[in-house]
Amino acid sequence: MQDLGDGVDARPYGMPSGHEAHVVRRDVPWLTADPVSSVNFTPLHELDGIITPNGLCFERHHAGVAEVDPARHRLMINGLVDTPLVFTMEDIKRFPRENRLYFLECAANSGMEWRGAQLNGCQFTHGMVHCVMYTGVPLRHLLNEAGVRTNARWIMPEGADASAMTRSIPLKKAMDDCLVAFAMNGEALRPEQGYPLRIVVPGWEGNMWVKWLRRIEVGDAPWHHREETSKYTDLMENGKARRFTWEMDVKSVITNPSPQAPITHGKGHTVLTGLAWSGRGTVERVDVSLDGGRNWRPARIDGGSHPMALHRFYHEFDWDGSPLLLQSRAVDSDGHVQPTKKALRAVRGENSIYHNNGIQTWHVRAGGEVENVEVS
Amino acid sequence: MQDLGDGVDARPYGMPSGHEAHVVRRDVPWLTADPVSSVNFTPLHELDGIITPNGLCFERHHAGVAEVDPARHRLMINGLVDTPLVFTMEDIKRFPRENRLYFLECAANSGMEWRGAQLNGCQFTHGMVHCVMYTGVPLRHLLNEAGVRTNARWIMPEGADASAMTRSIPLKKAMDDCLVAFAMNGEALRPEQGYPLRIVVPGWEGNMWVKWLRRIEVGDAPWHHREETSKYTDLMENGKARRFTWEMDVKSVITNPSPQAPITHGKGHTVLTGLAWSGRGTVERVDVSLDGGRNWRPARIDGGSHPMALHRFYHEFDWDGSPLLLQSRAVDSDGHVQPTKKALRAVRGENSIYHNNGIQTWHVRAGGEVENVEVS
Repeated sequence: MQDLGDGVDARPYGMPSGHEAHVVRRDVPWLTADPVSSVNFTPLHELDGIITPNGLCFERHHAGVAEVDPARHRLMINGLVDTPLVFTMEDIKRFPRENRLYFLECAANSGMEWRGAQLNGCQFTHGMVHCVMYTGVPLRHLLNEAGVRTNARWIMPEGADASAMTRSIPLKKAMDDCLVAFAMNGEALRPEQGYPLRIVVPGWEGNMWVKWLRRIEVGDAPWHHREETSKYTDLMENGKARRFTWEMDVKSVITNPSPQAPITHGKGHTVLTGLAWSGRGTVERVDVSLDGGRNWRPARIDGGSHPMALHRFYHEFDWDGSPLLLQSRAVDSDGHVQPTKKALRAVRGENSIYHNNGIQTWHVRAGGEVENVEVS
Repeated sequence: MQDLGDGVDARPYGMPSGHEAHVVRRDVPWLTADPVSSVNFTPLHELDGIITPNGLCFERHHAGVAEVDPARHRLMINGLVDTPLVFTMEDIKRFPRENRLYFLECAANSGMEWRGAQLNGCQFTHGMVHCVMYTGVPLRHLLNEAGVRTNARWIMPEGADASAMTRSIPLKKAMDDCLVAFAMNGEALRPEQGYPLRIVVPGWEGNMWVKWLRRIEVGDAPWHHREETSKYTDLMENGKARRFTWEMDVKSVITNPSPQAPITHGKGHTVLTGLAWSGRGTVERVDVSLDGGRNWRPARIDGGSHPMALHRFYHEFDWDGSPLLLQSRAVDSDGHVQPTKKALRAVRGENSIYHNNGIQTWHVRAGGEVENVEVS
């Protein structure tokens, strides 16, 4: 327990109550061979609203967290530009800034559920997502400063970590809404989120949001690097792979009740809540089912509806104490409806790791305990 | 410097980069006699966007931070109600919830500036304000559960800290938009912000947002307690005091450049940014002046405009290297215009501590250094 009795200067940078010590990011030990290339998960079942606190945003690294001194950090823009440029952090902060609330979801979120219910908790099935307000400079300002050549069609951001992460991004997206971000939820980016600079690619898979951003190359074709060929492609039933599946599909999950957050108060007034999002715009509606998808009721969306941001939904009901099969189904502003896992597998098979946006089912037992199940 | 090279589990609850160790809440040692009843200030000049990270929200305590076990905490509602009630934390979370982004400003913010420019930095002149997304239950749900009697007109929230903080709040406000909040920016309230429960009184002075909320009494008249008589009243020039000045007036401040954030890049492209807010609604516009109020230019508001929340504004300009007198002036949706300090003193005198929303002036020297000044 922290000592808070000595006045206001005990903690110049504040921390949560000791009673909340269980509210942390957690990993799945068997998931990866080496902690340097690993992942941990946002504790969605312990959170509310639509903002993820910076200390609880999930982490995914391909070669550990880079330690970067902002005073020595540089961003280069090269390739098909009139004038290759190198920016300091101070240079970047002299361009006009924008502030936007966006979700970031790893393409592999829910990836372990393709072959059936595996993990007992929304933190593990859906916790590779977070949502913060970014502050940054629209990438088009920097590209325009360098002067993009007429034959340019793609950009390739590169990270300063040991994996030198690279991805190909269409120039159109780069000029439209990508940000070169230096702050999240008001303060500097966290080290594990790319301090001091990352690219924000709204609505698109998290791997493209290159962290510790040190270079952007402009080109006329995609680079076909490792992370867009052997990884982050979707192996289909026929042995061929879908490529460039960048947009994150409409998705939702009930965070409470859930396996890590059972019903402990018995019968009566019960608050069901969860999160919904889409890489194609806003979430227009969320329906919830208490009986495994037979009957649906509209949920209440609260806390604002921002494009490509998490949406919070609630459904209040009187629980009679009998078993439930909880599901949520989101519909986005582009008309997409979140599919059942069965429908998804019928099209994509079970070989994939990425882009699983199927409807999640939680089984609530009479005692209030909750488990991850599948319904046919 | 923290060691981040060992993979993702080094910090289950993440912290800022060691390079950001200077971004902390700071106090003014001479301000109060005892740290148990003291204050520290949000580092506004180091932040961007409209959300304050939980670890950097300013603190103000009248008797230190209460250490409350949420499992043992109770909220009582008594007084002019049909059925006095006692709620556990779990009981409260069974009512419908709302999520709202609100600023909280101490009535004494900028209070040391009534008699002239005192403090060299917006952290100290304006840093008793923060803005987070609260999750809570509308207070009307709890009051309706208890059944408010027809002669009830006021409520009195009471804190569980050693000062047993109490304030009188009109029943109309309580039923309109007050929240009984348990989360901020997605996670549980921080200890210094009232963990596990506080009342949120949108747009009204921070002292009324009673922390460690343990009781709400319903009555037919205000209680005239200490914090609404000897404190939190505005002593006028004629020796009389204004009372019940709850709403926070329209206000703004330029956070960069400012004394703690001088211009270090020399002439040319310069980003001026700041914050604006009003307890009476949204901020409709912010104008900025580079010459001490002679000429005004419209600033660009970015990051969303939410009622009774901080608004972020920017003004990009080419600095020619000559001295500047920076000012910002906000106008709210209720038609109020932020006044000059001179105009404010003409009406209120200089005896007051509270509700100073006068226009702030920063003097930028030719070298880029910035100081707090007053212009006549």
